[in-house]
This record gives sequence, structure tokens and C-alpha cells, in this order.
Amino acid sequence: MKSLEKLILGIRRFPGIGPKQAERIALYFLRSSQADSESFINALRDVKDKVKPCSVCFNYSEEPVCRLCSDPSRDQSLICVVEEPADVSAIERSRGFRGVYHVLHGAISPLDAVGPETLKIKELLERVRKARSTEVILATDHDTEGEATALYLAQVLKPLSVKVTRIALGVPMGGDLDYVDERTLSSALVGRREF
Amino acid sequence: MKSLEKLILGIRRFPGIGPKQAERIALYFLRSSQADSESFINALRDVKDKVKPCSVCFNYSEEPVCRLCSDPSRDQSLICVVEEPADVSAIERSRGFRGVYHVLHGAISPLDAVGPETLKIKELLERVRKARSTEVILATDHDTEGEATALYLAQVLKPLSVKVTRIALGVPMGGDLDYVDERTLSSALVGRREF
Repeated sequence: MKSLEKLILGIRRFPGIGPKQAERIALYFLRSSQADSESFINALRDVKDKVKPCSVCFNYSEEPVCRLCSDPSRDQSLICVVEEPADVSAIERSRGFRGVYHVLHGAISPLDAVGPETLKIKELLERVRKARSTEVILATDHDTEGEATALYLAQVLKPLSVKVTRIALGVPMGGDLDYVDERTLSSALVGRREF
Repeated sequence: MKSLEKLILGIRRFPGIGPKQAERIALYFLRSSQADSESFINALRDVKDKVKPCSVCFNYSEEPVCRLCSDPSRDQSLICVVEEPADVSAIERSRGFRGVYHVLHGAISPLDAVGPETLKIKELLERVRKARSTEVILATDHDTEGEATALYLAQVLKPLSVKVTRIALGVPMGGDLDYVDERTLSSALVGRREF
């Protein structure tokens, strides 16, 4: 059973997978047809071989410049800064944004030894300068690391005289006021809009 | 992004994985080191190439006869019949069983067109006859399909004059009586033991 146990251990390393689910997935894979398992292994291999960070926004892409950065119908002077590639997918799913992105690949976190120099911040500044961006939206998470990163970015972007905004903090759709934390609630009140 | 999307679709096919988790896992894999990703792909390949059903009990194994079936310290005449390989792991984790197993690879389910002939039942009967087993424990699930399978097995095993038992139905450890269904509760009462 050695190779099955090795696979279960490998699956357990993925985020959000417990020991029982890892076993279920490994057995599911073992039972899958030869064609299905080959195509899954090829998909893994392809991703590793073909997908690289876009040279402009650092989101993952199969081309040197990604689909969004080379799309003339999108506002290339409006840059939304996010922490991770998954954040780009989340905002794209909302269909509420027609600008472009900049993926930092992390957030400033002194405890994890992640400083500004490990993130794609130098590249952001250069990009804003070169592309004469009109606005930079800071869409890092609203946690300690995300806030620290947003504060830092606001500071270093200031000399470039570009408009810098932060995504709104508020009560989520369908959220019960009872369960919303105090900081979110007070921010939602401060940021209230006329009805 | 085509190959990343293909991988996400492939991951979504695994049991218990939602769309967001599939994306997180794909990005985690993409970020992993070349060595880690290679060793994961090799583990998948090894499992497909090396792991086959044991010729005696049909549990998955890398040898023609599995570790348990070739272990002289286990009671080879006491056979515990289960539906799936994962059930073997579950019973082994309990450390309460020193016999051997027989994996049916499913349960009788007319709705899914799974009849007795698709399961490893013929092989079980032959094994019981040849090995002069003393007891067959039916440890199929306590759901409709598992009960139907147990009933069927009890019938076909009868002519072989082997002792046939069924694992106990009862209140689970830590279970709240309030939340236990009526059938389980009445079975737990019928199967009560002296304190």
C-alpha cells in the first residue's frame, strides 16, 4: 500500500483537505478510468509547464501578457491591486470592474518575514509611472496584513500623484447585522450613501 | 488560462470539492516547488501503475496478495465483508479486528443497475468454501443497499454452513440519544448488554 499512502499524504497537503477526504479522493482517482487519470495528470503537468505570471500584472497566464492586460476594451489606466490570483477571479466573477489588475502575490506581514520588497510593489510603481494610470484601487484584504499593505502602498504611491482609493468596508449582502463585527458596522455607517 | 481552468475542472470532479476549493488547490499546486509537484505527479502515476486488487480479498494492494491476507498472525478463517476499500481502513483504525477482509466493491442497488453478479460475491463464496472459514461478519453499511446486500449474502452463505453475523447497530460513541433515529435506537435497545 506504500504508493497509495504516499498519494494520500500528497493530497492532504492541499488546503482544506482532511485525512478522510484525502483517502476518498485517492481511492476515487484509483478507480477512475485510464483516460480520465491520464488527462488529470496531463492537466497538472500543463499547468506547471505553461502557466507563468503575466509580465504586466503578475496574474497567472499562459501568454507573456495576460488576456486582461492585452484587452483594449478594458480601462488600462485603472489598476486594482489585489493580494492573490484568486482575488482576480473573485472580482471578475462580480462583473463589476472594467479596469485591470496588479497581483502582489502576498501581503506585508513582518511575522512571516514578508516585507514590501518580496511583493510586486516595485513593479506596481514602475507600471503606474509608465502607464500614466488615473486611479489605483487598493483591494487587499481587510485584515491586519491587508491593511498594512494598503497603508504602505498609499504612502509610496503618493509621490506619483495618482488617485488612490480603497474598496469599501461594509455589511455583506445577506449579512445579518447581529453577526457583523463592530469595526465593519461602524465603517458601514461612516460610508453610508443617500437612498 | 486554459490549462489552469482545465485543472480546476479536473479537481472539481473529486468527491467533496466545491468550485472555490478547486481553484485554491489548483493555485496551491501551481505555486508549489518543482520537486513537490513532480513527486505529487509521480505518486498519482505510481498508484495507477502499481496498486491492484488483492487476488484474495480484493482490497487494493501493491502485491498480488495483500499484506493482511498474507499475515500469519491474523485469523484467516474469520472474514469481514465490507463494501469499499475505505471501510477496511476504517475498521483497521479501530484496532478491534484480527481477522481478514473481503471487499465487495459496491453494494446491491437495483436503481444503479448493480446486481450481485457485479460484486465480488462469487469470489467470496469460493473463498469461504476453500478456506473453510469459521465465520463471515457482514459489515456492509446500514443503509438500504447495504442491508439488501447483507440479506442476499446471508442467503447465499447459508448452504456453506458457515457462521454468518452482522455488525451491531447501536448508538454511536458521543452520540446524543435525542438525535439518534428511531430504528437505531430500537436496535440498540434490543441489542442491549448486561452492565
